[in-house]
Amino acid sequence: MQLADIQSQHDDRNLYIDKVGIKDIQYPIVVKDRKNGKQSTVAKINMYVKLPHNFKGTHMSRFVEVLNNHRTNIGIESFRGILDDLKNVLESEESHIEITFPYFMEKYAPVSKLPSLMDYECSFFGSSYKNKKDFIVSVKVPVISVCPCSKEISRYGAHNQRSYIIIKVRYKGMIWIEDLIEMAENSASSPIFSLLKREDEKFVTECSYENPVFVEDIVRNVADKLLKDDRVTWFEVSSENQESIHNHSAYAEIVRDKR
Amino acid sequence: MQLADIQSQHDDRNLYIDKVGIKDIQYPIVVKDRKNGKQSTVAKINMYVKLPHNFKGTHMSRFVEVLNNHRTNIGIESFRGILDDLKNVLESEESHIEITFPYFMEKYAPVSKLPSLMDYECSFFGSSYKNKKDFIVSVKVPVISVCPCSKEISRYGAHNQRSYIIIKVRYKGMIWIEDLIEMAENSASSPIFSLLKREDEKFVTECSYENPVFVEDIVRNVADKLLKDDRVTWFEVSSENQESIHNHSAYAEIVRDKR
Amino acid sequence: MQLADIQSQHDDRNLYIDKVGIKDIQYPIVVKDRKNGKQSTVAKINMYVKLPHNFKGTHMSRFVEVLNNHRTNIGIESFRGILDDLKNVLESEESHIEITFPYFMEKYAPVSKLPSLMDYECSFFGSSYKNKKDFIVSVKVPVISVCPCSKEISRYGAHNQRSYIIIKVRYKGMIWIEDLIEMAENSASSPIFSLLKREDEKFVTECSYENPVFVEDIVRNVADKLLKDDRVTWFEVSSENQESIHNHSAYAEIVRDKR
Amino acid sequence: MQLADIQSQHDDRNLYIDKVGIKDIQYPIVVKDRKNGKQSTVAKINMYVKLPHNFKGTHMSRFVEVLNNHRTNIGIESFRGILDDLKNVLESEESHIEITFPYFMEKYAPVSKLPSLMDYECSFFGSSYKNKKDFIVSVKVPVISVCPCSKEISRYGAHNQRSYIIIKVRYKGMIWIEDLIEMAENSASSPIFSLLKREDEKFVTECSYENPVFVEDIVRNVADKLLKDDRVTWFEVSSENQESIHNHSAYAEIVRDKR
Repeated sequence: MQLADIQSQHDDRNLYIDKVGIKDIQYPIVVKDRKNGKQSTVAKINMYVKLPHNFKGTHMSRFVEVLNNHRTNIGIESFRGILDDLKNVLESEESHIEITFPYFMEKYAPVSKLPSLMDYECSFFGSSYKNKKDFIVSVKVPVISVCPCSKEISRYGAHNQRSYIIIKVRYKGMIWIEDLIEMAENSASSPIFSLLKREDEKFVTECSYENPVFVEDIVRNVADKLLKDDRVTWFEVSSENQESIHNHSAYAEIVRDKR
Repeated sequence: MQLADIQSQHDDRNLYIDKVGIKDIQYPIVVKDRKNGKQSTVAKINMYVKLPHNFKGTHMSRFVEVLNNHRTNIGIESFRGILDDLKNVLESEESHIEITFPYFMEKYAPVSKLPSLMDYECSFFGSSYKNKKDFIVSVKVPVISVCPCSKEISRYGAHNQRSYIIIKVRYKGMIWIEDLIEMAENSASSPIFSLLKREDEKFVTECSYENPVFVEDIVRNVADKLLKDDRVTWFEVSSENQESIHNHSAYAEIVRDKR
Repeated sequence: MQLADIQSQHDDRNLYIDKVGIKDIQYPIVVKDRKNGKQSTVAKINMYVKLPHNFKGTHMSRFVEVLNNHRTNIGIESFRGILDDLKNVLESEESHIEITFPYFMEKYAPVSKLPSLMDYECSFFGSSYKNKKDFIVSVKVPVISVCPCSKEISRYGAHNQRSYIIIKVRYKGMIWIEDLIEMAENSASSPIFSLLKREDEKFVTECSYENPVFVEDIVRNVADKLLKDDRVTWFEVSSENQESIHNHSAYAEIVRDKR
Repeated sequence: MQLADIQSQHDDRNLYIDKVGIKDIQYPIVVKDRKNGKQSTVAKINMYVKLPHNFKGTHMSRFVEVLNNHRTNIGIESFRGILDDLKNVLESEESHIEITFPYFMEKYAPVSKLPSLMDYECSFFGSSYKNKKDFIVSVKVPVISVCPCSKEISRYGAHNQRSYIIIKVRYKGMIWIEDLIEMAENSASSPIFSLLKREDEKFVTECSYENPVFVEDIVRNVADKLLKDDRVTWFEVSSENQESIHNHSAYAEIVRDKR
């Protein structure tokens, strides 16, 4: 028996759909790693195509088939192939993929040099249009920020807190996730670590007290680096400081198109 | 003793900041209600201004002061005043406010007519620039969607699930939150309710089975209504169907600028 | 036409169900307020009953009806009535209700005395059994914690962060939400505020630096107060310090039954 | 220079702390897999010890060191070693570890037999006391549930939705995560899949319509299997049905101690 193909029926509302597909599928993936070659992690993935006005629906199962074919090698450069496959198997002229995953880097405590892993939430956003492709890399980097105002006006101490810096870039040539993480960590009061012995804690405390930054300073410090980096053609940088003296965050954001 | 005003110091990195302010402050607010005049609810609020390149920082406490002054009357029309106040007290030429809150409507079960409350997540996004203002209203509406393919190919039954329709609009004249909620509810297989007696459940089951819709149909149905509504100048409509046969969602999105 | 009552049919698996009901319904409620009499807020609510082994199902719509009847007056003392109503209308010998909501208190900045609102996540957990009732109040209180080790070993500064103290108590007589919030705020390095002017920020910075506490100290400080309070018959206190030098939390928990 | 060891100082409040340690550290781990031997995934981990009344604080960095030593082989049987290590290096008589991670199983669509991966949220909870150990495995399994009442009273169709079944067990001998997942999937209207072609969708729709279950039936079906399984000594099973006709869930829970 032939089952009816409702999705391929004609639709006469004359409305193309910008994006249609699957959202929030969780899948194990293998991503490129600057130091170790490859890294196993787990991603949340969205995949969409454009649907022409005359088709009633898309074929959702084919998105999962494309994902199955590529999941053992997800990287900035393999995105081109995934986007092309989506266009082909879904017979569409535009395709999109968004993927978010924790990425781990081995870091060494600043004094004891003990190793541990830090986690960073990373995302790739890729789109393929008729005559162009678009690709954005995003990293979310936890750091410590010490408040310059609090330090200046107080006889001792200074409030500080965990901040999350998000950097999104469009670029030409090659950029590693690790490059962006390092830019963020070098723009705050101090990087942070999973494992710190007492001598390391002393170092991070003193170092961050010597480098107080407002949320405004953080995004300006990152923006300054991104403006000077010729690979970067567009960026959006934000920082959310989870203020220890409030129950809300301080936030700043800079967007620049260098093209 | 005069405390140093670090934020007002000069910054020489020559970088203006697009948005700086406070994020995720939770506050009780009172919003306009089409039926009852006013409604008490609780909001998450972000407030930002643009910071000129020559200032080191903004004054975060003033954002909370502006919020304190307006919180007993938050509505589409009072946003203008909040945005102007932010520009004035923070000496900026651009201001932004984003506010998200649960909004409740009394609904009557379709057969028994018993009343209960439904919750909808609503947002207002407002911006004030040098020579223009921008304002977006957003509603997130839970509905039921029955799959037309599953209904057609199966001898009996059809998989269905909760879907969330999000409508964002720019408009001229007056639009009520309730107007957008009703558009969404009329574009799915059936509206849903907090309280249904057996006769109501029978009604919703049969009604939704008679009106199967793909995620594509939902966004097209809403888009069709928004295109015909002359008040609407721009919209983005999406639907996320939390597929009962998968552990991920089906998703579709239409954006149109009518200006 | 009489619709079949499937839920009331006989079940022969001989298994009673500990809890059955509705979960995560969002509803506007009015709660008692020590200062202002009443406060409007929005709650997430779970309501359950015990189901005897011989019934196939419970009647879910009746839970919402009970909620409708009580939502304009939710308080520690009205819980008894809700629990009794659940037992009656659902013909069960045990009932449970869990309710979580943001609760707001007006606070005055320590030096400028400017007012603003702080939000605290509060919960009530109530159960009614054949011959006894059980009731727990819970508050989640954000505070600032300065690390004593970091202060001691560093030449200047000390890492600090936002911490969340959760206090749950069983008690006799009367306890206000506000009493528990104050116990938590007095057990950390300093309370925190939504609105602080520069002179207040100086005060909070210096005060918290003068009162460094480990996560262990926080829970011991609270436990000490709860042990000495004769109204409290059982408690669980925890603190989660969102360490500014790590991307994870430090955590401590003390449980004591004084009965 | 010798840095002061504040944590080891004496505390005279005479209060032992039930649990102290680190919470919500994200780490890549390798877990045992029934089919493939091993599986790489990413976990959120909590690790605690009991702190005697006379110590001021614990040594947080040692928790991360223990985690580093074990992360390439996390399994039900290796928990004993982690718990022992925590007791030793933190000089405590009680230790606890809680670990939650997505676990993936390859499943074959029911008719087309096409393979895809399903994700299940799994947890291990382990505790080591003076003279005993305690260990709980938990799985969270998405399934489809068709409402028997809706089917019975309606002329056609029946509302259905995604449900999440959580099974927690204590046991003797050996139980695989996969065993518990299969018990859950066999207790609902139908298992669900990431990838379904049209013939599979027809099968799942019809199969689930033929097997309607209330949330009460789901937990009774699982409980029945767990009561008959001699390996299981204690269990807690719950199901949360994300009702497609409401914006809240139906919930049921059964707990039994067979010891």
